[in-house]
Amino acid sequence: MTVDEALLHLKYKPFEDLGYAKVDTHRRIRQGAPEVIYGAGKTPEQIEGIVSSMRQNGTKHILITRLSPEGAEALSGMEGFEYFEDAKAAVVGGFPEPDGMGDILVVTGGTSDIPVAKEAAITARVHGSNVVTLYDVGVSGLHRLLSNMELIMSASVIVAVAGMEGALASVVGGLADCPVVAVPTSVGYGASFGGVSALLSMLNSCASGVAVMNIDNGFGAGYYANMINHMGVRK
Amino acid sequence: MTVDEALLHLKYKPFEDLGYAKVDTHRRIRQGAPEVIYGAGKTPEQIEGIVSSMRQNGTKHILITRLSPEGAEALSGMEGFEYFEDAKAAVVGGFPEPDGMGDILVVTGGTSDIPVAKEAAITARVHGSNVVTLYDVGVSGLHRLLSNMELIMSASVIVAVAGMEGALASVVGGLADCPVVAVPTSVGYGASFGGVSALLSMLNSCASGVAVMNIDNGFGAGYYANMINHMGVRK
Amino acid sequence: MTVDEALLHLKYKPFEDLGYAKVDTHRRIRQGAPEVIYGAGKTPEQIEGIVSSMRQNGTKHILITRLSPEGAEALSGMEGFEYFEDAKAAVVGGFPEPDGMGDILVVTGGTSDIPVAKEAAITARVHGSNVVTLYDVGVSGLHRLLSNMELIMSASVIVAVAGMEGALASVVGGLADCPVVAVPTSVGYGASFGGVSALLSMLNSCASGVAVMNIDNGFGAGYYANMINHMGVRK
Amino acid sequence: MTVDEALLHLKYKPFEDLGYAKVDTHRRIRQGAPEVIYGAGKTPEQIEGIVSSMRQNGTKHILITRLSPEGAEALSGMEGFEYFEDAKAAVVGGFPEPDGMGDILVVTGGTSDIPVAKEAAITARVHGSNVVTLYDVGVSGLHRLLSNMELIMSASVIVAVAGMEGALASVVGGLADCPVVAVPTSVGYGASFGGVSALLSMLNSCASGVAVMNIDNGFGAGYYANMINHMGVRK
Amino acid sequence: MTVDEALLHLKYKPFEDLGYAKVDTHRRIRQGAPEVIYGAGKTPEQIEGIVSSMRQNGTKHILITRLSPEGAEALSGMEGFEYFEDAKAAVVGGFPEPDGMGDILVVTGGTSDIPVAKEAAITARVHGSNVVTLYDVGVSGLHRLLSNMELIMSASVIVAVAGMEGALASVVGGLADCPVVAVPTSVGYGASFGGVSALLSMLNSCASGVAVMNIDNGFGAGYYANMINHMGVRK
Amino acid sequence: MTVDEALLHLKYKPFEDLGYAKVDTHRRIRQGAPEVIYGAGKTPEQIEGIVSSMRQNGTKHILITRLSPEGAEALSGMEGFEYFEDAKAAVVGGFPEPDGMGDILVVTGGTSDIPVAKEAAITARVHGSNVVTLYDVGVSGLHRLLSNMELIMSASVIVAVAGMEGALASVVGGLADCPVVAVPTSVGYGASFGGVSALLSMLNSCASGVAVMNIDNGFGAGYYANMINHMGVRK
Amino acid sequence: MTVDEALLHLKYKPFEDLGYAKVDTHRRIRQGAPEVIYGAGKTPEQIEGIVSSMRQNGTKHILITRLSPEGAEALSGMEGFEYFEDAKAAVVGGFPEPDGMGDILVVTGGTSDIPVAKEAAITARVHGSNVVTLYDVGVSGLHRLLSNMELIMSASVIVAVAGMEGALASVVGGLADCPVVAVPTSVGYGASFGGVSALLSMLNSCASGVAVMNIDNGFGAGYYANMINHMGVRK
Amino acid sequence: MTVDEALLHLKYKPFEDLGYAKVDTHRRIRQGAPEVIYGAGKTPEQIEGIVSSMRQNGTKHILITRLSPEGAEALSGMEGFEYFEDAKAAVVGGFPEPDGMGDILVVTGGTSDIPVAKEAAITARVHGSNVVTLYDVGVSGLHRLLSNMELIMSASVIVAVAGMEGALASVVGGLADCPVVAVPTSVGYGASFGGVSALLSMLNSCASGVAVMNIDNGFGAGYYANMINHMGVRK
Repeated sequence: MTVDEALLHLKYKPFEDLGYAKVDTHRRIRQGAPEVIYGAGKTPEQIEGIVSSMRQNGTKHILITRLSPEGAEALSGMEGFEYFEDAKAAVVGGFPEPDGMGDILVVTGGTSDIPVAKEAAITARVHGSNVVTLYDVGVSGLHRLLSNMELIMSASVIVAVAGMEGALASVVGGLADCPVVAVPTSVGYGASFGGVSALLSMLNSCASGVAVMNIDNGFGAGYYANMINHMGVRK
Repeated sequence: MTVDEALLHLKYKPFEDLGYAKVDTHRRIRQGAPEVIYGAGKTPEQIEGIVSSMRQNGTKHILITRLSPEGAEALSGMEGFEYFEDAKAAVVGGFPEPDGMGDILVVTGGTSDIPVAKEAAITARVHGSNVVTLYDVGVSGLHRLLSNMELIMSASVIVAVAGMEGALASVVGGLADCPVVAVPTSVGYGASFGGVSALLSMLNSCASGVAVMNIDNGFGAGYYANMINHMGVRK
Repeated sequence: MTVDEALLHLKYKPFEDLGYAKVDTHRRIRQGAPEVIYGAGKTPEQIEGIVSSMRQNGTKHILITRLSPEGAEALSGMEGFEYFEDAKAAVVGGFPEPDGMGDILVVTGGTSDIPVAKEAAITARVHGSNVVTLYDVGVSGLHRLLSNMELIMSASVIVAVAGMEGALASVVGGLADCPVVAVPTSVGYGASFGGVSALLSMLNSCASGVAVMNIDNGFGAGYYANMINHMGVRK
Repeated sequence: MTVDEALLHLKYKPFEDLGYAKVDTHRRIRQGAPEVIYGAGKTPEQIEGIVSSMRQNGTKHILITRLSPEGAEALSGMEGFEYFEDAKAAVVGGFPEPDGMGDILVVTGGTSDIPVAKEAAITARVHGSNVVTLYDVGVSGLHRLLSNMELIMSASVIVAVAGMEGALASVVGGLADCPVVAVPTSVGYGASFGGVSALLSMLNSCASGVAVMNIDNGFGAGYYANMINHMGVRK
Repeated sequence: MTVDEALLHLKYKPFEDLGYAKVDTHRRIRQGAPEVIYGAGKTPEQIEGIVSSMRQNGTKHILITRLSPEGAEALSGMEGFEYFEDAKAAVVGGFPEPDGMGDILVVTGGTSDIPVAKEAAITARVHGSNVVTLYDVGVSGLHRLLSNMELIMSASVIVAVAGMEGALASVVGGLADCPVVAVPTSVGYGASFGGVSALLSMLNSCASGVAVMNIDNGFGAGYYANMINHMGVRK
Repeated sequence: MTVDEALLHLKYKPFEDLGYAKVDTHRRIRQGAPEVIYGAGKTPEQIEGIVSSMRQNGTKHILITRLSPEGAEALSGMEGFEYFEDAKAAVVGGFPEPDGMGDILVVTGGTSDIPVAKEAAITARVHGSNVVTLYDVGVSGLHRLLSNMELIMSASVIVAVAGMEGALASVVGGLADCPVVAVPTSVGYGASFGGVSALLSMLNSCASGVAVMNIDNGFGAGYYANMINHMGVRK
Repeated sequence: MTVDEALLHLKYKPFEDLGYAKVDTHRRIRQGAPEVIYGAGKTPEQIEGIVSSMRQNGTKHILITRLSPEGAEALSGMEGFEYFEDAKAAVVGGFPEPDGMGDILVVTGGTSDIPVAKEAAITARVHGSNVVTLYDVGVSGLHRLLSNMELIMSASVIVAVAGMEGALASVVGGLADCPVVAVPTSVGYGASFGGVSALLSMLNSCASGVAVMNIDNGFGAGYYANMINHMGVRK
Repeated sequence: MTVDEALLHLKYKPFEDLGYAKVDTHRRIRQGAPEVIYGAGKTPEQIEGIVSSMRQNGTKHILITRLSPEGAEALSGMEGFEYFEDAKAAVVGGFPEPDGMGDILVVTGGTSDIPVAKEAAITARVHGSNVVTLYDVGVSGLHRLLSNMELIMSASVIVAVAGMEGALASVVGGLADCPVVAVPTSVGYGASFGGVSALLSMLNSCASGVAVMNIDNGFGAGYYANMINHMGVRK
């Protein structure tokens, strides 16, 4: 593609204008590639409209994030709809066969971080990655993490999810050889300031090989980890 | 490697105790792999001691970051020493042949962001990536960015470096298909708060596929981008 | 008017003291010019009292902002009352004929920014401007914005409404030749800190020709854009 | 211009690539229109290079902002160069004849705010506006402001520059009928937090018709006020 | 009283230990002087217990602050109990005859600041001051304030209550000759940050003669203004 | 224990994997030593499961913190279960005989700080310390504190719990000879910012011998004070 | 004076326009009353000009605050000039005879707070108050404060100056019967954040009768304390 | 000692008033116990005066903290004076024989944290504790920490000193059985915000048994650790 074509492509890149939203493909335009709907603030009718539009354009797997249980209830009749309450996410059309380079390992510091971790895991799976999870391995009890060294050493990418002091990202970053995607969570109280403490910890990580997402952004981490996991596999 | 071996390896992993520092290999233990010295707060004598120790252990390429011009002056007699003043970085032993999947593109919003960009570029190069740079393409003049669409579309990973409002990461993230590593810089004045404005922008990016580094952390971005660029090439 | 007259005018400028409020005209005292009631924290009875007082003074068009659906319900019997639920605003007496220099373009980054945009649009319309809207054109999908270049190039003033990283203001400011009024919104989560991220982005915009309003202040933006749109038309 | 033309124009819009900077015209491409160089962080040689390039392209009036006295000294031999030390700004090629709708009034709260005010005034003048100034009229001595009511009532646009508590913008906004561009300054100590106090005051102004610039951004305010002052005059 | 007596007095100063509270007299121990109960977080039974204890010790006038309507309902049977819903305050035993030097003037910027103003007014009254109020005279409409210059010039102390940008304190401080007690309120939205904007404005007031209370601390302001109003009258 | 044994111990240290949690012993592995369950975000079934698992491992005293009244209701049938509503804590299996060096004194600034103080007291008691409490002795009425000098002088460790300005820690730290564990609370309003004011006060204490816990972290303070109180008694 | 006269007075209130400053009398216009020059950012020539202008208008005592030693050196030849280096303040024309109600007591927490205390003391003295000082009586050694109870009990107003945790204001507020003016200082390190910790402590003081000034604002405190000390004496 | 005696003791507790400072004993009044002088902001003459006064009162060991090299130079002639440049601390009269329960272990995350660690170590030693140090064992290279498990397991108290993300405190807290005193340092850049990131991490530590000091407060940590180390040994 020449530059002129790229530019004109930018203008004529297809999107469907539904009035309240311009449904487009932020990503590669391939038949059947997964698409994502940010469910927060959309009515079930709007979501259903967007799903229809996507399916007509050949999308096979659709991820809906930040979907409330009430919204999921209303959409539960849709063909191929599956809701994951913990993660507040739904998938329409199931998960594709994993075709990434290796496994994505999703680890959490505590039990309360699991919903964010599950959002990351589902996002990565719907985009074609195999995901392994390891929950409640915070750094105050290192033996829980060290007992699982083989998972850490064999992962292709690691998503580290932690609230409170967020030290998990640094410890995992120091143990692993692969890229770590760190997600601070709003878990904690007092001086955790809704995730700011964990966010700052992760940004200041003394371990190289750690990049950071917004607080509670499990989707972003799963999406990013999946991109890395497909380097050299798809382009 | 079994888990028990991994654990014992953790304990017996070689590091040299120089008193003021424990020189170890945070990364893969391969003959000749690059090592990094954080130069800030170390005397030229200390740095020289660490370089010697590394070379005896077979390290061929050594990166020294945050090295002042005075420090560089004092070290300039070392064999194979080269200083990059803009980036406040030095390399001992030159750069290896690039062996990554593709090119890393480093873009900046303005002229003042160039030092951070150069730190990222040198870091990536010393670890084995080819780097292409594109400076001063901030979003207030989109035509400068759009004129270079082919660089964006052909990159393997993009490092986006910007201060002030940091919007570059979102725009590049929306245009590109590859992972973007965003680095906020402390460039700006007033309500930029030393890089906080750009940092928040990048964390809140509406584009998927953007992960964030600490303010002015060019090294971290170059290191991370290089890791991604070697996925599927080395393990 | 001499200065002495201006001063005495300041003192004798008419306002009606209703006890809980001093209803005055912050703006030009012209027969029929629109007036604004800040509805938050006022009872329907109080609002009705103020509207009556205004009408007796010859005001033809009255805007009520931050009015809850319950408040609107209670006031729905008033003659000429129309409620816009999205914008949480009501107009009494309809909209005047537009008499500005050109069109005001109101753009939003996402769907969730629409309520703030609508508050801006209604405010501008009730003060005599024609308004064109363009929603969900955030910078992560530039083609949605570039497809609408003619709206941007032909606007008299642009109101840019965005949450999250607020980059829309900079991009629009770089594309347009006219003044841009930027409104950060509290849309987002985590490190968006209730609109602080977007606010800082807009204040630090690298594009010239961008001025900023308080977070979620659609009214202020519509009012300001309308003032600009009437420069050289009215005084 | 059609949309396709606009898009291609975006790509082919002329800019000169000087390596360290991409000199382009952020604004309307008219022969002789003023151009601006942000002087901070540029060497005198770089500035001279950019000035040469601009002049060859027919620019008659060039503004250099944030220029240190040392930089000005080094550039003082350039033809038509004039330095304004207070404002840390220089103009090459003098000021054009004012052709705006009316006068821009620049007011300051105190004496220490004058440098920012002067940057605003010079910026507006070099773009073709007549500027009137009124210094040290902070709200703690209202009589100083009220003695100058005729300036306030007759201005086309007002730039209000204030540090500390920044209340000047609200008071002027309440007195005036025209748009007010508010610039917080970093003047103050203790809990003024480098201009944050004034910035927040201005964003929360209870007066309608006030828009806000970044802390100490005199240039932005002058530029924006000039845009408004030319509405209906040029397009 | 000698120092030794003062010290022993500190130890033996009477307080009644009710288990959940140590009811003491923070202030002068005079028969009949008013006492204050901070109602938040106390049950009606606890409050009733404290009131009984105070009355037995000869207290004639008792102020209860931060008392919810439900709490007031439960206490409404107490002899001499009067509840002021706006101010969320109750008085038991009525108000004493004013015996201060002059009048305390309580002014507010807007209608929403009235509850805090009323808490200040009731506090000052129960301690023996006459109070005059002037509401909704924010600086965006100076004529409302200037029309009441005689109140400002004749006050003994002024309590200035304002949210949003809090400029009222500076303007009143500049107009008046007497001490001003400034109370920021949490009224506002967006960048008012729950009263922080007004607080910073007041701390940075360019007017001399302004001291500041905590956000929404009407009680503190009324108490402090009353102290000043009794200087030279009581000791 | 040799280092190798310690390392392997780290790996093989027993924990029971219940899926949603890895129940382990963060602390000394002694038969009958108390264990702690952080109740927030766990269902009664999960808590009951963990309690069962602990008891089977020989734990005699179990503390459950941050347990809601509803949760306590559901668990009330468990043998040996006792709920302390103020402290939102439950103990299963009662308290052991105190075997510390001396008494832990828990003091609070006000009545509203009592719940945090009680969490500290219960935590210390279940781990084997005797606890003495002294409530509502804030520094604005020093006589309340000075009347209790013998408690202060005879304590082994003091836990100082205070919100608002948190000055209690400094005053107690200056009076006492023993270590003080300071706990800021979120009690207050306005510029107390949810406990930040008290937290900063305590961190900046001019008294030596004061260490600080997270806001509202009564558990942490009780645990830490108990550790100190057992120095030289147990190891 | 009638209101109309007051208003016109506001306009015609004399001030001398020196170009860079509008020298006016913020305060009562009495022959000989003290005037204040804020020295920061003014050249010795400008200060000398203002002093001359004031003297011609009959001002007997002039205070210059925030005056550097260099500035003082340059002004040292002026008749009646005296410089107080600690306080960075100068007085021209000496101090008047004290004519207040009683003594103002200025207390500090530590030695480093003395400069701010001295600025307060000099300000109060030049306006006609007698001042007593008590330094280094921070709350970590209560005996230093309690040994001076008679000073506290006999003061007319107390100025409490403290950095770090700022608890002095609360303790003094609890001991004294008179109004306390609290001044946080920027003394401290780490989490004192340049005076923010002390500022928050003082705003959240649990003692009634404490009002707060900006960080390091000794002038404001001395001015305010003097106003209170003259209640009932002058009007 | 009875309470009355304690109170009177508080008043008559000896302190020497040197004018600029009130030299007192914050701590136990024992012949020969160490005393501390906070050197910052004191002249060498003042320090020498305080040392003299202390020695006459029988103090054998004196610690001077925050002493600049220039100050040390000026004091170097004093008998028994020893300066530790790294720690910016001096000791007069040498160190006493250790008489604590066990060893205090001081660990640091990096090399740049060593000065704060040394301040802690010297403080603990001068008060009678034996100190063991372990530097540069940050969590990004766990093997450095795990290789020293016997030091961690055998310590009486641990002082954990770390900047950047401050995760060291949590990891050490999880490994150790003894109390941990955590000291955040201002080491780092960008989003470390001068130690705030490490401070928040430590306050939010998921490990029990961690208490926190102010940023860079090595003295406080050494003092506190020493208090704990003498529990049960001295009272």
